Amino acid sequence: MIPKGFLFSAVEAAIKKPGRKDLALIYSETESNMAGAFTTNKVKAAPVRVDMRRIQSGRGQAIIVNSGNANACTGEKGMRDAIEMTRIVAQGFKLNPSRVYVSSTGVIGSPMPMQRIRTRMHDLFAGLGKFTIRDIAHAIMTTDTFPKVVSRTVDVDGKSGTVAGICKGAGMISPHMATMLCFLMTDIAVNQRTLHRTLRDAVKRSFNRVTVDGDMSTNDTVLIMANGMLGNREISEKSKKYRMFQDTLFDVTYELSKLIAGDGEGATKLVEIEVKGARSEVEAQKAAFSVANSNLVKTAIYGNDANWGRIMAALGYSGISLAEEKIDIYFGKVNVVRKGLSKGKDEEANKVLRGKDIRIIIDLHLGRSSARVLTCDLTEEYIRVNATYRT
Amino acid sequence: MIPKGFLFSAVEAAIKKPGRKDLALIYSETESNMAGAFTTNKVKAAPVRVDMRRIQSGRGQAIIVNSGNANACTGEKGMRDAIEMTRIVAQGFKLNPSRVYVSSTGVIGSPMPMQRIRTRMHDLFAGLGKFTIRDIAHAIMTTDTFPKVVSRTVDVDGKSGTVAGICKGAGMISPHMATMLCFLMTDIAVNQRTLHRTLRDAVKRSFNRVTVDGDMSTNDTVLIMANGMLGNREISEKSKKYRMFQDTLFDVTYELSKLIAGDGEGATKLVEIEVKGARSEVEAQKAAFSVANSNLVKTAIYGNDANWGRIMAALGYSGISLAEEKIDIYFGKVNVVRKGLSKGKDEEANKVLRGKDIRIIIDLHLGRSSARVLTCDLTEEYIRVNATYRT
Repeated sequence: MIPKGFLFSAVEAAIKKPGRKDLALIYSETESNMAGAFTTNKVKAAPVRVDMRRIQSGRGQAIIVNSGNANACTGEKGMRDAIEMTRIVAQGFKLNPSRVYVSSTGVIGSPMPMQRIRTRMHDLFAGLGKFTIRDIAHAIMTTDTFPKVVSRTVDVDGKSGTVAGICKGAGMISPHMATMLCFLMTDIAVNQRTLHRTLRDAVKRSFNRVTVDGDMSTNDTVLIMANGMLGNREISEKSKKYRMFQDTLFDVTYELSKLIAGDGEGATKLVEIEVKGARSEVEAQKAAFSVANSNLVKTAIYGNDANWGRIMAALGYSGISLAEEKIDIYFGKVNVVRKGLSKGKDEEANKVLRGKDIRIIIDLHLGRSSARVLTCDLTEEYIRVNATYRT
Repeated sequence: MIPKGFLFSAVEAAIKKPGRKDLALIYSETESNMAGAFTTNKVKAAPVRVDMRRIQSGRGQAIIVNSGNANACTGEKGMRDAIEMTRIVAQGFKLNPSRVYVSSTGVIGSPMPMQRIRTRMHDLFAGLGKFTIRDIAHAIMTTDTFPKVVSRTVDVDGKSGTVAGICKGAGMISPHMATMLCFLMTDIAVNQRTLHRTLRDAVKRSFNRVTVDGDMSTNDTVLIMANGMLGNREISEKSKKYRMFQDTLFDVTYELSKLIAGDGEGATKLVEIEVKGARSEVEAQKAAFSVANSNLVKTAIYGNDANWGRIMAALGYSGISLAEEKIDIYFGKVNVVRKGLSKGKDEEANKVLRGKDIRIIIDLHLGRSSARVLTCDLTEEYIRVNATYRT
């Protein structure tokens, strides 16, 4: 289901390899409330810098996005190019340029092929309404192996409201930021401040809890547009419907996060690491990320080897407080470690790892806090994809 | 060259795969001054805990070491086993057990096969003097592809003194600790306090600046024995010869560190990352490690792709202060980035990457501090080695 009033278009502009759409437009029939979350990397791509300024207004109507070139580390020219992309869209639809956002993903450090982009703009505008949200999800893919779309429909004031999202992920995925490109749309009316807070909370517990390779991108962006075309009473933090909206948005972002982790470059398995019994949520998260970012843990999972010793080592260097003799570790339902010692169930746990959807639960038995982190296994294919990315 | 008074032995005890020696003994004819550096991982193997206690005395005469089993996460039994290994050696040579050290490396979480070790002890003792230092370097290998031995001979008071070292590395190599097993020996007389300080400084600038996969082991140990058999006047921090000893020990540890990085699991290249122009040494080191630990940078190097955008991204998330528009990056002598922008020399830099010994220099142009970190590329072979390690 697509939220009311959103239109899509995508074209080939030869930014990526031939035969793949790489320039897309998301357009709302009316101006929308908007909120955003951006990479915390100090090296920020030009489009990120443009959007971070514009999102201050809390308003917007269109997003132009390209794949194949990140427009990062491109200096002043990069800034001019990003702004020009929004200006052409603004002119085409008679919008204030400040209401147009821009995102780019792909190779860092190459100038944007602006001539090719300019010549495709007319077709991009003309195509509006002739494409599906899935086509846009396709057009923003880089090393993703499938397009990522999630939508949920909920009842608001007796009407059917929709929250939909698309994203791209795959590599350079790490937390403390929005972790990739994600565009969320809803026809539910939500006030600006509430939209901002709800997005921030959802991102914190979803995209910021995904790690593929511990590398943090220069371009990560999450944008949400709420155009209010459902005609419901605008949701605020005091509304009865607020909790429902919050849950729905989190649900969409968490499902998208799972798609990203499961489609990590070269991944064969989606892995959820849950740390329980920590002294604080910060410590739980730190421990979970330490395990999720361990190349040794991730290759062992790939090899169907329940090598819990590597998990113990990753916990040990995570910097949190721990008592080795209290730690329990589970692979799915198989308890491999109890009070820091092997239970001799490695063979059974190896069988769990043969699945596609792996859960590892670590109980520190020190407190009541917990955190979940999503990741994937590390395979030869990750190396292949990334050793040859620019060739 | 081997320092005077050190004897070696090694046997097969079936701890590792058949046909490979896995139990070794280093013995000094006289009691020696000793110093050590150990993993900072909170999960510490039993032998590390034993040695950390004994090194307080600053004295020792023998080291027993096995590969194939790390004796980590093995609880009380692990502690008993580690102590028993030292006690058998002490009995064999009529030493105080507190003068015997023990190291283990290999799989975590399996009980030590003590029966097999006990039955091989007689042959281990009988073999003393029949083996070379290289045999010991061989016996401590796990996934290493070659034995690692470095020695330097220097003039002390008109006599020829030697500092020799062996180590094993390969995987689970990361800083903030001694990073692997390393045994250093010298016949030069050095006082206890000086030996301790010199070792600490050398380790800080060598082994603690190596990273293969960012994983920190539970077992890392560096031990040095100075038996004084050269008969020189004991070196203290006030001796004229102090600086020479310091330089020699650092030289040995840095060369060993290079061997470890170059023999990283699956590595095809040794990579040195130098960050200059940082505000402080801590920031320089942080930035260098951020780049050296980036899977994306390491796979690009493997693919001979001078993808400096990934270096910029890794600098950006390293947490240090930086100004994108000031950064210069060199691959060997090729200047690929100047003031944060591409110089269009990627093709030339790709050629540099075809070598075996890669230097990447990053100048932040913000201050006067610098740091060097050693690492290697990340290849399919790393995945293969680690996915099947226990099978």
